[in-house]
Amino acid sequence: MTPYPISLNDVRAASIALQGVVVRTPMLENADVNKKLGGRLLLKAENMQRTGAFKIRGAYHRLLGLSEQEKSRGAVSYSSGNHALGLARACQMMRTSAVIVMPSDAPVAKQAAVHAMGAEIVTYDRDTQNSADVVQQIILESGRVEVPPSAHPQILAGAGTAALELLQDAGGALDAVVIPCGGGGLTAATAVVMAEASPDTKVYAAEPELFDDTRRSLIEGQRVPNPKGRRTICDSIMTPIPGEMTFDINRRLLAGGVTATDDEARQAMRFAFEYFKTVIEPGAAVGLAAVLNGQIPIKEKTVGIMITGGNIDAVRFSDLVNTTA
Amino acid sequence: MTPYPISLNDVRAASIALQGVVVRTPMLENADVNKKLGGRLLLKAENMQRTGAFKIRGAYHRLLGLSEQEKSRGAVSYSSGNHALGLARACQMMRTSAVIVMPSDAPVAKQAAVHAMGAEIVTYDRDTQNSADVVQQIILESGRVEVPPSAHPQILAGAGTAALELLQDAGGALDAVVIPCGGGGLTAATAVVMAEASPDTKVYAAEPELFDDTRRSLIEGQRVPNPKGRRTICDSIMTPIPGEMTFDINRRLLAGGVTATDDEARQAMRFAFEYFKTVIEPGAAVGLAAVLNGQIPIKEKTVGIMITGGNIDAVRFSDLVNTTA
Repeated sequence: MTPYPISLNDVRAASIALQGVVVRTPMLENADVNKKLGGRLLLKAENMQRTGAFKIRGAYHRLLGLSEQEKSRGAVSYSSGNHALGLARACQMMRTSAVIVMPSDAPVAKQAAVHAMGAEIVTYDRDTQNSADVVQQIILESGRVEVPPSAHPQILAGAGTAALELLQDAGGALDAVVIPCGGGGLTAATAVVMAEASPDTKVYAAEPELFDDTRRSLIEGQRVPNPKGRRTICDSIMTPIPGEMTFDINRRLLAGGVTATDDEARQAMRFAFEYFKTVIEPGAAVGLAAVLNGQIPIKEKTVGIMITGGNIDAVRFSDLVNTTA
Repeated sequence: MTPYPISLNDVRAASIALQGVVVRTPMLENADVNKKLGGRLLLKAENMQRTGAFKIRGAYHRLLGLSEQEKSRGAVSYSSGNHALGLARACQMMRTSAVIVMPSDAPVAKQAAVHAMGAEIVTYDRDTQNSADVVQQIILESGRVEVPPSAHPQILAGAGTAALELLQDAGGALDAVVIPCGGGGLTAATAVVMAEASPDTKVYAAEPELFDDTRRSLIEGQRVPNPKGRRTICDSIMTPIPGEMTFDINRRLLAGGVTATDDEARQAMRFAFEYFKTVIEPGAAVGLAAVLNGQIPIKEKTVGIMITGGNIDAVRFSDLVNTTA
């Protein structure tokens, strides 16, 4: 029993349930980078996960809990892209249907990939409509089961398996873990895993400078939104406000929030390209960026970074990586 | 005792000697890619090795065999880039000096990186000069020890550690291994490892279509050169003729040679970007390209591919990946 919606045991059980379904992604480390930074930098490469992001862990785990009747009605969710991809693939694997509500400005490559996996896409306007309202309308009309990006214990437990693997591969000695944070699901799941399995590990949420709702919410002790109308290159974590279930965990367990500017995110993408030969999408780069910009101390420490996704098309990747200072 | 310059035991010993020096690079696998190809595709990600290529394995292992007197005189070698980087870093770590003979058209990024690691660069013209002659002149003048890209048992044993790791991570069940092949060192070392540890595994050399000297040499039973004056985007394996020591192994152990056009190499780079989120340089992509172009059968088989390097600057990477069909 823990005071949270999930416990370490739930995550362990999810790990077993997901074996053979999700990739046990590698932990990347580079001695030259460590020397340069004066500490150990460990990247959990969930960009190399199926569908290019950690999201399939939670989505598939949630679908495992559906009845045959629920599966026959199918799933519905909203997502700017990565959860959509993970859910669409999970539904395809479980032979159930999916409707995904996506912002109209979601990257074309992500929309095309979701469509290619057989999911139906419904778009909405990020500034004038509320995605949750659109989803609720679809549920009322179709009886579909909502598989939200994070607000469900089975989804949190699935996401937490990435944190468990990182802790195992790091040999347990993590001073800090930094998680790019949108709604806060992976962050909350990681926080629960660390609180039980490695209580000295500090857990930080990393956000784009202009979408630092979790950081400010942690300071104020309650959920505060981001102003509307803002933009960032970090599309995958451009969330309006922390999730209720996830913030209730994060509020109690996080060491704090850190931020990165769009240019710092670009520089982190380029750093990952040059030193780790790995492709990171902008929203997945803010954790690494917060180490490189000095907000997360790494000297003589071991810092784990969740690399949450790598879904970016080649032209946009080139534009972002080649225009940084 | 084996009839080759190295045995599996030499490679095992090198593995132990290199522990903590080289990265145990991940083996990448993607269930969606496997489904698409109808077989298991395993990528040994030596692009994530220190200095971005497998070369440091052999170079460092060779330096371990030098006397104090030899170390005081320093090392010399020729290389189009990756061996230069590996040797320069290895010399820096062992506190000895390095002179590297590089073709004048070697990628600027590689030359700059070699220079940054403290090595001295001497350039030569690929079409009118012979790199070996330039190296011999330097040896005569300075007494430096040659650390060639592949033609030394300790270098082969070091390179072979990558093949050993791949075999371990694959759980032993490899139907084939494909190695991008320049001088043929990694290919020969892999062939020896497989011949002893997994004799049913077929080993193939993969080359650029216009630099298929090993493929043609295997057919003719003797070393034949590439015509002068040709170019390919695969700079790292643009070698004039198979190495003598390496071809003597490859001639006896390889299943054959396969090729990829420059455009197929580009497509393989893009495939790796999209599905594996990993950065491959052109010369390291020909193995994957030979699977994608159908020369290496993969249906219902397990095929390991050596991803030999990822040293390419962001602008050139973008140009190559975005201009493919």
